[in-house]
Amino acid sequence: MSGNTFGKIFAVTNWGESHGKALGSVIDGCPPGIELSEKDIQVELDRRKPGQSKVSTARNESDNVEILSGVFEGKTTGTPISIIIRNKDQKSKDYSEISKIYRPGHADYTYQMKYGIRDYKGGGRSSARTTVGTVAAGAIAKKVLKEKAGIEIISYVEQIKDIVAEIDFNVVTPADVEKNIVRCPDEKTAKKMENLITETQKQGDSVGGTVVCVIKNVPVGLGEPVFDKLSSDLARAMININAAKGFELGRGFRVATLYGSEMNDCFFLEDGKISTESNNSGGMLGGISNGMNIHFRVPFKPTPTIHKEMKTINIKGEEIKFTAKGRHDPCVIPRAVPIVDAFAAIVTLDHYLRYLIYKR
Amino acid sequence: MSGNTFGKIFAVTNWGESHGKALGSVIDGCPPGIELSEKDIQVELDRRKPGQSKVSTARNESDNVEILSGVFEGKTTGTPISIIIRNKDQKSKDYSEISKIYRPGHADYTYQMKYGIRDYKGGGRSSARTTVGTVAAGAIAKKVLKEKAGIEIISYVEQIKDIVAEIDFNVVTPADVEKNIVRCPDEKTAKKMENLITETQKQGDSVGGTVVCVIKNVPVGLGEPVFDKLSSDLARAMININAAKGFELGRGFRVATLYGSEMNDCFFLEDGKISTESNNSGGMLGGISNGMNIHFRVPFKPTPTIHKEMKTINIKGEEIKFTAKGRHDPCVIPRAVPIVDAFAAIVTLDHYLRYLIYKR
Amino acid sequence: MSGNTFGKIFAVTNWGESHGKALGSVIDGCPPGIELSEKDIQVELDRRKPGQSKVSTARNESDNVEILSGVFEGKTTGTPISIIIRNKDQKSKDYSEISKIYRPGHADYTYQMKYGIRDYKGGGRSSARTTVGTVAAGAIAKKVLKEKAGIEIISYVEQIKDIVAEIDFNVVTPADVEKNIVRCPDEKTAKKMENLITETQKQGDSVGGTVVCVIKNVPVGLGEPVFDKLSSDLARAMININAAKGFELGRGFRVATLYGSEMNDCFFLEDGKISTESNNSGGMLGGISNGMNIHFRVPFKPTPTIHKEMKTINIKGEEIKFTAKGRHDPCVIPRAVPIVDAFAAIVTLDHYLRYLIYKR
Amino acid sequence: MSGNTFGKIFAVTNWGESHGKALGSVIDGCPPGIELSEKDIQVELDRRKPGQSKVSTARNESDNVEILSGVFEGKTTGTPISIIIRNKDQKSKDYSEISKIYRPGHADYTYQMKYGIRDYKGGGRSSARTTVGTVAAGAIAKKVLKEKAGIEIISYVEQIKDIVAEIDFNVVTPADVEKNIVRCPDEKTAKKMENLITETQKQGDSVGGTVVCVIKNVPVGLGEPVFDKLSSDLARAMININAAKGFELGRGFRVATLYGSEMNDCFFLEDGKISTESNNSGGMLGGISNGMNIHFRVPFKPTPTIHKEMKTINIKGEEIKFTAKGRHDPCVIPRAVPIVDAFAAIVTLDHYLRYLIYKR
Repeated sequence: MSGNTFGKIFAVTNWGESHGKALGSVIDGCPPGIELSEKDIQVELDRRKPGQSKVSTARNESDNVEILSGVFEGKTTGTPISIIIRNKDQKSKDYSEISKIYRPGHADYTYQMKYGIRDYKGGGRSSARTTVGTVAAGAIAKKVLKEKAGIEIISYVEQIKDIVAEIDFNVVTPADVEKNIVRCPDEKTAKKMENLITETQKQGDSVGGTVVCVIKNVPVGLGEPVFDKLSSDLARAMININAAKGFELGRGFRVATLYGSEMNDCFFLEDGKISTESNNSGGMLGGISNGMNIHFRVPFKPTPTIHKEMKTINIKGEEIKFTAKGRHDPCVIPRAVPIVDAFAAIVTLDHYLRYLIYKR
Repeated sequence: MSGNTFGKIFAVTNWGESHGKALGSVIDGCPPGIELSEKDIQVELDRRKPGQSKVSTARNESDNVEILSGVFEGKTTGTPISIIIRNKDQKSKDYSEISKIYRPGHADYTYQMKYGIRDYKGGGRSSARTTVGTVAAGAIAKKVLKEKAGIEIISYVEQIKDIVAEIDFNVVTPADVEKNIVRCPDEKTAKKMENLITETQKQGDSVGGTVVCVIKNVPVGLGEPVFDKLSSDLARAMININAAKGFELGRGFRVATLYGSEMNDCFFLEDGKISTESNNSGGMLGGISNGMNIHFRVPFKPTPTIHKEMKTINIKGEEIKFTAKGRHDPCVIPRAVPIVDAFAAIVTLDHYLRYLIYKR
Repeated sequence: MSGNTFGKIFAVTNWGESHGKALGSVIDGCPPGIELSEKDIQVELDRRKPGQSKVSTARNESDNVEILSGVFEGKTTGTPISIIIRNKDQKSKDYSEISKIYRPGHADYTYQMKYGIRDYKGGGRSSARTTVGTVAAGAIAKKVLKEKAGIEIISYVEQIKDIVAEIDFNVVTPADVEKNIVRCPDEKTAKKMENLITETQKQGDSVGGTVVCVIKNVPVGLGEPVFDKLSSDLARAMININAAKGFELGRGFRVATLYGSEMNDCFFLEDGKISTESNNSGGMLGGISNGMNIHFRVPFKPTPTIHKEMKTINIKGEEIKFTAKGRHDPCVIPRAVPIVDAFAAIVTLDHYLRYLIYKR
Repeated sequence: MSGNTFGKIFAVTNWGESHGKALGSVIDGCPPGIELSEKDIQVELDRRKPGQSKVSTARNESDNVEILSGVFEGKTTGTPISIIIRNKDQKSKDYSEISKIYRPGHADYTYQMKYGIRDYKGGGRSSARTTVGTVAAGAIAKKVLKEKAGIEIISYVEQIKDIVAEIDFNVVTPADVEKNIVRCPDEKTAKKMENLITETQKQGDSVGGTVVCVIKNVPVGLGEPVFDKLSSDLARAMININAAKGFELGRGFRVATLYGSEMNDCFFLEDGKISTESNNSGGMLGGISNGMNIHFRVPFKPTPTIHKEMKTINIKGEEIKFTAKGRHDPCVIPRAVPIVDAFAAIVTLDHYLRYLIYKR
C-alpha cells in the first residue's frame, strides 16, 4: 500500500536512503534449491555502482552486498532473502544549503509536502541510490530465470541526446553491452556518445538518452489479463526507475502512424514452430507473451543536478537562485542499464512463477 | 493475482466476455455518502459504446447499465458497488471459422496456449468490449474526484496516422472534446482525420493514433514512492488498454534529447503559490504530483481486424490465408478516449484516497 | 483494502445487501477446463437458503444462481466467473422503526458510525445473507479441490447450547450430515437439538452452538510461513462468518492444559506412509499441512434478533426499549454448516494453487 | 503471496532464520513525524528475549536492535523502517543428529516436504525466534497508536496448565503484568504457575497455557466488512504465532451455550456516551469496533522440545527413537505475551490507518 514492495509471487521490498546507514531489500518468493552466493549479486551491483568509469559520478561506493537470510549451505530455501548494502561514503558533505531549498527537477518539494519531513541528504529516499536493493533482487531473478526457464534479459543504451545507434536488438549479447563504458553495443556510436558526455560534463550540464531491453526465450503464456498484463507490469516497472519518462513496447509510438495491414504480425511456421513474420507488437498479444522476443524502449531525462544557475524556491517560500556544487553525474543512462535489466527480470520471473500454476 | 482487479483502496474487479450474457465490475472502496445513479454512469458508457458514429463499428449495443448494490436511497454506502451491462447483440454471427484459427494481431493464440481453452466469440475476454465495466467504474471515480477534490480529467485524440493536431492541453474543455465524432478538439484537423478514417474504411483497412490526457487540480503529494508512483500506476493503467503500445509522461521520449538545463522545471511564485515555469516533467517529481497539470500521451495501434488477406495458422498448426468478414472498426481511437479517462480517474482516485491517510 | 475480496490466487469478491436488487460474487483465478454449471452451485445454495426447514427462518428465497461469465461451452476458461442471485422476497416489510434505532447485537451502530450512512433493510451489508456469494464460490472451490486433488471437506453441527454430540470427525460422510435438519450426524443427539430449538423458538429466544470441520486428503505442504499459514488463513476465514466468535485447531484450547509429552503427535509409518499416532495439532505443523486430517471447531453466538424486550439506543442517542417483530431464526447453526464448508474450500484451494508453484 | 508480509497499510515484512546471520523486518507505512529510537524498540525485545528469567530458555541473546532506515534526525519519515537484530549465540551446537530426523511437534517434516530443503539449525525459519522482527514492528505500532489515538494494548498470562487466574481484564495495567516473571497479574496464582513450570522443567517436560489481550480506547469504526473484519484479522494474527492453537473473541466458545437474551450486549448511555451493559461480543459488532474494550484469549501448546524419549521418523523414512538434548524452554507462555501485544498492535494500527480514510 505504501509502495515499497514490487511483485506478487516474487516480491521485492526495498528500503534505505541515499545517505542512511545502509540500503537493501527483502526478496520473498524466490524458488528453493537455487545455488546463490554474494558473488552472483555483486556482479550486477558493480555494473550499477557510482564511480565505475569516467562518464559517471565520482561518489566512491564499493557497494558490497551481504546476504543475511534465506540461503542455507549455498542454496535458497524458499524463505525471504534479506540483502544489505552498507553505505560508506556518507559523511563529509555539507547539506545545510540543500536542507533549506527545493531543487528544480528533484523530489525535495513533493516529499516535503507529502510527508511534512524529508531526509535531504543526497535526496534521501528519492535518490536513485535506492535502486541498489532492486538491482540485487534483479540479479537473483535473472539467475533463476536462466536456470529454471532459459530466459535471458539484455539491455543497452541506444541513444544519448541526438546520437542514436542503429542496432538489431535480436543479436546483441551481454558481452557486447559491456564492451564500452557507455554500454552501447555499437562501438563507433559509443565513442561519439562518450565524447558528448565528456563535453557536457565540462559545461556543467547533463544529457538524457534511451535504453532498449530485449527478453528472449519467454514461453507463450506469461501475463494475466486484463489488468496484470505482462506489458503493463513492464511499463509500471520501467516508469518506476528514477528519471524514466516513458515506455514503448515493440514499435511503440510509431504504431500510431501505421495501417492495420502494416501493423499485424502474421503467423507462419518456422522450423515447425509457430512464429510471426514481423514483431511490431513487441512479443505480446493481449498482454500475454507470444513466444517472440519481447522488446521495449525507455527514455531517461538528463539528471537535474547541474552546475548552472537555476531559479527556485526555498523552504520559506521565497524565490532564490541556486547552483549545485560538488560531484555530478553528467549522464546516468549507462548506469540505468543494469536497473532496467533488474526490473525486467523481476517482472518476468514474477509472471513466470504465476504461469506455473496453469501448467499443472 | 489473476489480474482482474485494479486499484488498492478504490479497487475495480472487472468481469465478462464480449459475447457472454453480461459484463460488469465490482467497485470496492468508493467513499460513502456520494449521490450516485445509473445516469451518472450511462453518460460515459455512451461515449464508449459501439455504433455511436460513422467512424466506429456497426455493432448495435445500447449498453444499459444497472447498479445492483452499494447504493441506498440514492447515495453510496461504502460497500461494494456492483455494475452490470447485459449483452443484447450477441446471437447471429457464425463463429465456426474463427474458432479454428489464430487471427493475426489478436490474442486468440496466446489465450489458447495459456489456458488450453478460449471463448472465441468476438474475442471473448480479450475483447476491448470488456472495458465497459472499467468505464463504468471510471465514471464513478470521476464524479468522486470532482466532488471531493475538484480534480478534473480530460482526454482527447491528438493524432490519427500522420495527421497531428496542435493543441494546448492546458485549455481543452470536455465540451471541446465532444464537439466532433473524432474527439479531436481542433475542428479543422478533426475533419481531416474523419476523412482519413472514412477513406481507410473503404479500403478495408484500419488506422492508429494517439490520445492525450490531462489531469487538473491535483494536490501536491499523490503517489507512493518507490514502486507505486503515480506515474508508474498511470503507465500500468494505460498499457492495460487494448491496443495501447506506449506511454509518455510530460515531454516523454523527447527528454532523451535534452540537456539538464533545458529539462529542469524551475520553481517560481505565481500569485503566491509555488509553481513551475515549464512542465516538462508532466506534473510529477519523484513520481509524486507537484500540483501542476499532469499530462501524458498514449499511442494506439490500428485494430487488427481488416478486410485484407493475411497469412496465419489454424488450430491444427497449418499455414492458411485469412480475410476477416462482417463489421469492422476502422479506427478505435475516438472510442479509446473515455477509456483513457476512466483509467486515469481510477488511478487518481486510488492515490487520492491513500493520500488522505497522510493528511490526518 | 476495503475488505470485500478474499483469497490471493483463488480470489472471491463478494457484493450485495440483504434487501438490495441482488447479491453475488466474482471468482477470479479458477483453473480453466473445469466442467461447471449452475447446478453445481445451486446444491450448496439450497443448503444455506432460508426457509429450508422448520428450524430456520421463514424468509422465502429460492436463491436461484446465474453464472454470467467465465464459463464457455460448459467449462471454466480461467477468466473471472461472475455469479448473481436476485432477491425476490424483499418488498413488503416496514423498516421505519428499525431505521431509527441501533439493535443490540447487530451491526447497525458500528456501520452508522463508520460510514455515516447504512442500508437498514434487513441489516443491509452486515446481514448473513451476504454469504450467498461466498457459498457459491465455495461450491466451485469444493468441486475443483475434489477433481484436481481429491480433497474433501465435511462440516457438521457438534453442539447446540448444552447438547454436545460425541462424533468421530474422521468417519463422518456428507450424507451423514444431511440426514437431519440440524446437520448433526448423531441422530439421537440431533433429535434433542431439534426439540431444544423448537422450544427456544416458542419462547421467542435463540440459541448458539458449534460447527466442526474436517478437511481430508490434503497433501503435505499447503501453507505459507510465516504470516499466511494455512492455520491462520482458516482462522481468519472462520471468524469472518457472521456470529462466529472463535476458532480452535486440533485440540485447540485444551492444549493449554497439556504437557508437551501429551501434546506431541509422534511420527510413525502406516502402510509405508509417514503418519502421526495422534492428531492433536489438527493436521498442521508450523502452519503447513502435514498430510493428516485437518480439523477445527467454530462457536457461533445465538442470533441477536429475539422476541424479548431489550434496552437500546435510538439514532437521536436516547435510551429506549425494543422488541423485534416478524420472522426470526431461532438457531442459525445448521445453516452455518455450508458457509463453513465454503470458506474452508476457498482457503484450501487458494493454498493448493499456491502450492503448485513449488511442485514444478 | 509467499506469506512474509503482514498488514496492508502498516505492512511488516519479516525475514531471518533462528541461527542465520541476523533477523529483522521492514516496516512500510509508518506515519511520518513520529519520534523513534532504538530504545523504543529494545524494551519490547527485552521482554521477548531468551534467558530473561529462570522460567525461560537458557539461550543467551542480547537481541540488540539497529534501525537502518526510515528515521531521520530522530523522526520517522514515512519511508520504510528497516530493523536488524544480529545473532550472536549461533555457533557451537552440533546439529548432525537433528539434520537427519523429523522432530515430533516441530515443522521439520512439513518444511522439508514443501521446499525440498530446510535450514535445520534451531528450526530455521520455523523457529519462534523469527518473531523478533515482528515484536520490533509491534513496538513501533504500539507507540504510534498511543501517540496518535490514545489506544493501549495489554496482554498477560491467564492460565498455565490447570492453574487459571481470576483477573478482570478491564483493570490490568502494563506494570501489573511485569511484576512477576510469569507475566500473570495475580501474584498468588503467578507463584503457583512459577512452581509448576520449575517442577515441569525438572521432569524434562513442558506446559501450555493461555494469554489474554485487551485493547483499550479504540474508536468506533475500525474493521472492514465483510472479509477484513478487525476480528478476523486479529484471529489470523494470533494463530500465526508459533504454538498458538486457537482464538476466542469476547466470551468466545462460551457463546455456544447461551440464549440470545443472555448474549446480546444491550446499549445504554454512560455519562452521555453510547456504551453496552455487558461486553460478551469482545468490543465488536459486525467485525467493526464498537468503542468498548476489545478482548480475546489465545491458547498455546507446550513446546515440543522435551527431554523425554519420543518415537519419530528419520529422513530415510525409518522409525526411530529420539530424545532432545541441550537447552529447553519448559514454558513459552510468558514470552508469548509481548508477541501477542505486537501482533495486536500491528493489526490495530493497520485498521486505524484505513479508518482515517473514512474520517475525511
